[in-house]
Amino acid sequence: MTQNRQWLIDGNPRGRALALSDFKENLSELVPLEDGEVRVKVEVLSFEPSQKGQLEVIAGYSAGGTMGEVMGARGVGEVVESRFPDVPEGSKVVGVLGWQEFATVKGKVLEVVPDDDFLTARLGPLGAQGLTAYFGLLRIGQPEAGDTVMVSGAAGAVGSIVGQIAKISGCKTIGTAGGPEKCDWIQEIGFDHAIDYKSENVKSRLKEVAFDGVNVFFDNVGGPVLNDVLARISNHARVVICGGISRYEQETLPAGPANYFNVVFRQAKMEGFLLRGYEHDYPEALARIKGWMESGELQFREDMQEGFDNIPATLKRLFSGANIGKQLLRL
Amino acid sequence: MTQNRQWLIDGNPRGRALALSDFKENLSELVPLEDGEVRVKVEVLSFEPSQKGQLEVIAGYSAGGTMGEVMGARGVGEVVESRFPDVPEGSKVVGVLGWQEFATVKGKVLEVVPDDDFLTARLGPLGAQGLTAYFGLLRIGQPEAGDTVMVSGAAGAVGSIVGQIAKISGCKTIGTAGGPEKCDWIQEIGFDHAIDYKSENVKSRLKEVAFDGVNVFFDNVGGPVLNDVLARISNHARVVICGGISRYEQETLPAGPANYFNVVFRQAKMEGFLLRGYEHDYPEALARIKGWMESGELQFREDMQEGFDNIPATLKRLFSGANIGKQLLRL
Repeated sequence: MTQNRQWLIDGNPRGRALALSDFKENLSELVPLEDGEVRVKVEVLSFEPSQKGQLEVIAGYSAGGTMGEVMGARGVGEVVESRFPDVPEGSKVVGVLGWQEFATVKGKVLEVVPDDDFLTARLGPLGAQGLTAYFGLLRIGQPEAGDTVMVSGAAGAVGSIVGQIAKISGCKTIGTAGGPEKCDWIQEIGFDHAIDYKSENVKSRLKEVAFDGVNVFFDNVGGPVLNDVLARISNHARVVICGGISRYEQETLPAGPANYFNVVFRQAKMEGFLLRGYEHDYPEALARIKGWMESGELQFREDMQEGFDNIPATLKRLFSGANIGKQLLRL
Repeated sequence: MTQNRQWLIDGNPRGRALALSDFKENLSELVPLEDGEVRVKVEVLSFEPSQKGQLEVIAGYSAGGTMGEVMGARGVGEVVESRFPDVPEGSKVVGVLGWQEFATVKGKVLEVVPDDDFLTARLGPLGAQGLTAYFGLLRIGQPEAGDTVMVSGAAGAVGSIVGQIAKISGCKTIGTAGGPEKCDWIQEIGFDHAIDYKSENVKSRLKEVAFDGVNVFFDNVGGPVLNDVLARISNHARVVICGGISRYEQETLPAGPANYFNVVFRQAKMEGFLLRGYEHDYPEALARIKGWMESGELQFREDMQEGFDNIPATLKRLFSGANIGKQLLRL
């Protein structure tokens, strides 16, 4: 063990689709650890749409990556060598490990986690996606029992959890997803209605399944779906803007939702959500999510790809909508 | 006094500019009053952008007018005949009187008001516009002392009051308006900065005068100004969507603000405002506004046109931006 395979940032995909050529394979030498450092054998990597932004340098959103550096990514791994006593050899850890076989990092930035059934869940429902769904829905969307809650990207890592927490909160749930497999799955996990935005007219389906209007819309997608839902929001509706994956690969800034003005007629609001400022409440949220997972009320699904060589292609899956549930890759 | 000149609705201006030919002059006979009715000699009429909507039948927003009916409008007048004891002959009243010389209405829907210096103010700062500014800014915008508050349509009936209440609330205030005369006036009444959207680049001026971002934006206009401000909102900004006059005469639904997604990066919100549900708090709000007017902290301006024949043209002034302050007409 002296060499380390890595994927380096080698392109800036701003204003275009992510390309495999935005990354370059690299072989580096492993050097001896310094005090405070640990070496982690990367086992599973997490993939998120915001990673495209890492390559793009968009002001204020994501800590941009730098050309020639190892692509950043959260992951789980096992400590194979340690000069930081709190993170001993043999521990399982979660943290920013990057697209590489071995990560050499400060031990203090890693979280030591038990080697249990929830290991990879810490990259999804028990990680950023679970927290995003929890706080975005409950604190911004503020669903009330009996409300109609709609979610776009409902078969994704965040959306699938949003719909289930809405269901647990006593709401009627509607999800949009692309294709019959995803639509079947979200109904399996409890969504009352699934709308296949690829083959169905969202506007007319919404008229059927949300005749009295949508009280809460949790948007991961933007574009025409957001616009169609804005036309059917109820009085005092809450629209949570969490993501806009339909926008991330466009050449120019796409138009905003023409129906935004309906927030006036409906005395409604659109509010942006970022997982920042909620840190204090993470433990309680994670404990509740874990409880729902253990009781079977909250199901999740991992889309597990395999192999170092497939890492860049796996990130691209998010933008083609190939993944169902949380996108991961096992090295 | 047996005949009544009226302007009737005679067109549907949806998807186009309002035209003088959307109204037709009519001469009707005055008939004897029934019990409970009063006859009002209309003295001053109030004009508002939402009146175009009255002709258009847009679901849920405005009680649409009907072809052939007298155009609806609020106004002040004097009771010339009464069969409703609470509203005696000689009273000054405010209510929906319509575009006509004499209004015959149920006495119970009229408000009897003192014949004082605030008579026409009850159609503006002490009426719907004042209440809209007050509740829209304070309840939705929630300005804090030290905040930067921006207002579009700042020389209008609502916008000019919003800026002054923001100033009273300890905020820095920026207004957009069209042309030097309006920009001079809003600075006279206390706006810290005026941006002439017709001759200046709103985006670059905003960078100068709101370098740290806009905490509250009160939008009466929509279109490019809304989009430019969204690019410069601060963290946790509140964008109050109150009007969209740039949209009201467009043929097709204009695009929404492309920068809407910035609400995510800034954890900000856009919320629609309608003056509905605040009725309980009207007396307190009106008392405060009147107090500020009496102390000179809140100034207002009336754009008073004259004459029955000019009524339709006066409504058109709002859409060409000809008015400064509250648009009124004295018959």
